[in-house]
Amino acid sequence: MENLLYNQLADQLTSHIRTGVYKIGERLPSVRALAKREQVSIATVNSAYAQLEDRGWVEARPKSGYFVRRASQEPIEPPNAYPLKPRPRPVSTTELAMEVQRGSALTQGASFCTAVPDLSFPINGIVQRTFTRLSRTGSPFGQGYDSPEGLFALRQQIARRAIDAGIHISPDALITTMGAQNSIALALRALTVPGDTVAVESPCYFGLLQMIESFGLKAIEIPCDPQTGLSVDALKLALQQWPIKTILSISNFSNPLGCSIPDANKRAIIGLLQQYDICLIEDDIYGELHFGERRPKTFKAFDEDGRVLWCSSVSKTMDPQLRVGWIAPGRHYQKVVQQKYVNSIASPTLPQSVTADVMEQGQFDRHLRQARLAYQQRCAHLLVLARDYFPAETRASSPQGGLVVWFEMPKHIDATALYLHCREADVRLAPGELFSVAGLYQHCFRLNFAKPWTAAREEAIALIGRQLKAMS
Amino acid sequence: MENLLYNQLADQLTSHIRTGVYKIGERLPSVRALAKREQVSIATVNSAYAQLEDRGWVEARPKSGYFVRRASQEPIEPPNAYPLKPRPRPVSTTELAMEVQRGSALTQGASFCTAVPDLSFPINGIVQRTFTRLSRTGSPFGQGYDSPEGLFALRQQIARRAIDAGIHISPDALITTMGAQNSIALALRALTVPGDTVAVESPCYFGLLQMIESFGLKAIEIPCDPQTGLSVDALKLALQQWPIKTILSISNFSNPLGCSIPDANKRAIIGLLQQYDICLIEDDIYGELHFGERRPKTFKAFDEDGRVLWCSSVSKTMDPQLRVGWIAPGRHYQKVVQQKYVNSIASPTLPQSVTADVMEQGQFDRHLRQARLAYQQRCAHLLVLARDYFPAETRASSPQGGLVVWFEMPKHIDATALYLHCREADVRLAPGELFSVAGLYQHCFRLNFAKPWTAAREEAIALIGRQLKAMS
Repeated sequence: MENLLYNQLADQLTSHIRTGVYKIGERLPSVRALAKREQVSIATVNSAYAQLEDRGWVEARPKSGYFVRRASQEPIEPPNAYPLKPRPRPVSTTELAMEVQRGSALTQGASFCTAVPDLSFPINGIVQRTFTRLSRTGSPFGQGYDSPEGLFALRQQIARRAIDAGIHISPDALITTMGAQNSIALALRALTVPGDTVAVESPCYFGLLQMIESFGLKAIEIPCDPQTGLSVDALKLALQQWPIKTILSISNFSNPLGCSIPDANKRAIIGLLQQYDICLIEDDIYGELHFGERRPKTFKAFDEDGRVLWCSSVSKTMDPQLRVGWIAPGRHYQKVVQQKYVNSIASPTLPQSVTADVMEQGQFDRHLRQARLAYQQRCAHLLVLARDYFPAETRASSPQGGLVVWFEMPKHIDATALYLHCREADVRLAPGELFSVAGLYQHCFRLNFAKPWTAAREEAIALIGRQLKAMS
Repeated sequence: MENLLYNQLADQLTSHIRTGVYKIGERLPSVRALAKREQVSIATVNSAYAQLEDRGWVEARPKSGYFVRRASQEPIEPPNAYPLKPRPRPVSTTELAMEVQRGSALTQGASFCTAVPDLSFPINGIVQRTFTRLSRTGSPFGQGYDSPEGLFALRQQIARRAIDAGIHISPDALITTMGAQNSIALALRALTVPGDTVAVESPCYFGLLQMIESFGLKAIEIPCDPQTGLSVDALKLALQQWPIKTILSISNFSNPLGCSIPDANKRAIIGLLQQYDICLIEDDIYGELHFGERRPKTFKAFDEDGRVLWCSSVSKTMDPQLRVGWIAPGRHYQKVVQQKYVNSIASPTLPQSVTADVMEQGQFDRHLRQARLAYQQRCAHLLVLARDYFPAETRASSPQGGLVVWFEMPKHIDATALYLHCREADVRLAPGELFSVAGLYQHCFRLNFAKPWTAAREEAIALIGRQLKAMS
C-alpha cells in the first residue's frame, strides 16, 4: 500500500515537471510540505523523491531540498572535428537518408530520428479544425490554379511575422512554396548549374546534402563552432580557394548542432557575399523555436542588396503535413517564381489559407510560447538522461533552440551500427554519417527531443545507452 | 407576350441541349408535338426554333425536322506547318506564359486560355465533401511526413485504373506527385542534365517548353499530324541527326491538337526507343477524357523494358486544386523517388487519401461518363460557333477528346495581338507563339471548351471573331 502511494506521488510530480508546473532549476515542495499537502508520511515523500532522483528528474541539494534537474551542469561540446583544408567533394547518397526519413511516420516504437516537432499541442487540433472549416466554407475547389507566387493573405501574414526576424519586406517580395526543403530546392536551382560548388555547414542536415548530390552539385563543408556556427575564417579561406557559387546555412538553431550564428558573424558573412559577388540561401526554419527571450535575427535582416534568399516554413511550428513554406528570393525573384511554376504550376490554395488563418488569429503566437518552454524542458531532460545512461566519454551539444541534440562518441564507435542495433528494438536515431560528405561523423548521432517524455521513451534512451556501452 | 413565350421556349431547349437531354445529332421534338406539349401556338415554336438556328444550336433538315447541330460537317485541319529540318533550339521564355496561366484563376470575364476542366460537375462537390470529411476523421495531421513514394491506398487505385490504359503495374512501381507537371519535372530531372536535347511535339504545350528552358535544356520540335500526332518518320530522322536524350509526348488527346497517336505508331516509337537506347516521358493527363467508346492505350502499354515514364494526374478529371498526380518511372524509379524526396520531402497525405477515396467509390467513373459527353457536346458547339463567327479562312482541329481546340488563321494574323485585344474586353485565349520554340504558330491560338456554354461565353467567341475580322 505504502509502495503504491509513493509510486503515485512520483508519477504526479513527474507529470507536473513534464507539463511545466515546476520548471527547470525550480525548487520543488519540501518533504514536510508535500507530506502535509498529500496527507502521506514523510517516508512516502522521501521514497517518491528518491525515485525521481533515480529517474533523473530531480536533484537533491544539501540543506536546500529538491530541485528540477538542469541539463548536465557543464554541457559538453562536440569538438571542432573537421578537415583543416576543406575541399569540394561529390556527395554520395545512400538509401539510408530515405530510410531514416521514413522513420518519421512510425507510429510504433520510439523515434528520435527526424526533426519532426511534437504534433500533440493544441495548435495541431486548431490547424485540423481550421482545415475542416475552410474546406467546407470558402473552399478554393473549383477555382482553377493558384497563382505561381502564392496566396496573398498568407504572404501578408509572413511579411508581418518577418519583422521579428529583423526583416522588413513587402508581401510581393515573397513566394509561397511546398515547405522549406522545396524553397531551398527552388533557390538552389535558380542559383546553380550541375558541377557548381556549394558551401555547407559541417555537420550538415542530410536533406541538404542529398539535394546537392541529386542536383549534380559539389559540396564543400565549412567547419562550425558548436556555439557560434559557421566559421567566418574557414568560410573566408574556402572562398579564396574555391569557386563557391552559393552558401547554404541553417542560420538559427542549426540542424544538427542547435547553435545560432551571432549577429556580428552574420554581418561579416554578408560582407563576404558582397566581396565575392555571391548569394546565400538561408534556412531559418527553426528561428521561432528559441529557448531564450528573443527570436534571433536572420541573415536577411542584414541584407542590403538582395543577396540573401530567406527560406522557412510552418513544418516545425504547425504541421509538416500542411506542406507550406516560403521564400524571399531577393534579387532572384523572377528565377525562383519561374522555377516554382515549371516544377508544379502552383501550390494548393487551401493549406495556404489555413496557415494564414491560424497565424492571423494569434493562436499561433500562444502556441509558440508554449512550445518553446516545452522544448527547452524536454531538451534539458534528454541531456540529463544522456548523462545518466550514455558512456562517460559522451559529448553533446547544448542547443539554444530547435528540436535536436548532436552527440559525439569516441572515434571507435560506429553510429551506423548503433542505428541498426537500435532499429532492431524499434528505436530510431539519425546516424552521423548522413551529415557529412567527407565521412567526418561516423561516431556521432542526432536525437530529436520534441516529443513529451514517457517511460517508454526514457527506456529507449536507456537502450541506446546500453548499446553504446556494449560497443565500447 | 408571344415574344416572351418563344424566348422562354428557346431558352428551355438550349438548356436541354446543354445538359445533354438532347445529344449531338439527335432529332428534336417536331413543331407540332412541341406546340402541343407546351400549349403554345405553332408560330411560337417556329420562332423558338428559328432563334436556336440563328444561335447555332440546331439545324433544320428538309422533311425531317430540327436536329441538334453537329460540329462543322467537314472539320478543317490545320496543316503540317513545320520546318522541314527540325533542329535543337534554346527555348526563350516570356512572361506571357505565366500571365496566360494566371488567367485560369479569373472569376470575371470569359476565360478560354488554360486547359482547366469544368469544375461545376457533381464530382467537384463530392471531392470537396470528401476533403472535409477526411480532414475531420482519419486526418493525417500529427503523423509526420508521408513516405517519399506516396500513399499506398492511392497507388493501388491508380494501378487498378491503369489497366484500362493497357498498363499492368504494381502499386510499388508508382510514385505519387504534386500533379502531372510535377511528374514530368521529376522525370526530366532524372533523365537529363543542362545542355541536353529533348524532342517535343510541335505544337507543344507551353508549360513543357517553359520547363525545358528553365532546366537549361534544348528542345527539338517534331512535326505532328493533326490526326495522328507525332510523326514517326520525322522523329526517326531527328534521332539520326541529333543527340536526343529523351522524348516528351502528350500521347492521347494532345494539348493543343487534341489528337491521339495510333497504337501502331506508339509501337513503332517504342522500337525507336530501344534502337537509340533512350526513354520517353509520356504525359497521359487527357487519356480518360475520350469522346469515343474506348480509352486509348498508352505508350506504357507497349513498354517491355521500362523505357516509358508514364505521368498523369487528376487535375483534368477531379480538381487541379488537389495537386495530386503520379508517375510510373520504369527503370528510373530510384532516381525519380530521390528527386521527389530532395525537392519536397513528401506530398501532403490528405489530398492523396481524398483522391483514393473518390476513385474507390465509383463516383469517379460515373463522373467521367458524364464529363465525356458534356465535353464532346461543348467542343462541337465551339466548332459551330467558330464556323459562324470566325473568318472563312479559319482552320480548326477536331479533337477526339481532351479540353482544347487549336485554331489556325492566315499567316498575317498575329495571335498575340489578338490575345491583347481580347484581354481588353476580359476575354482570354492562349496565343500560338507560346507553343513553339521556332516561332511557328504566331498565327494560331488555342481555346478551351470545357465550361458550359452561356450567352456571355458565346458572345465572347463572337467578340474574338469580330477582332479576327478586324485584323484581316
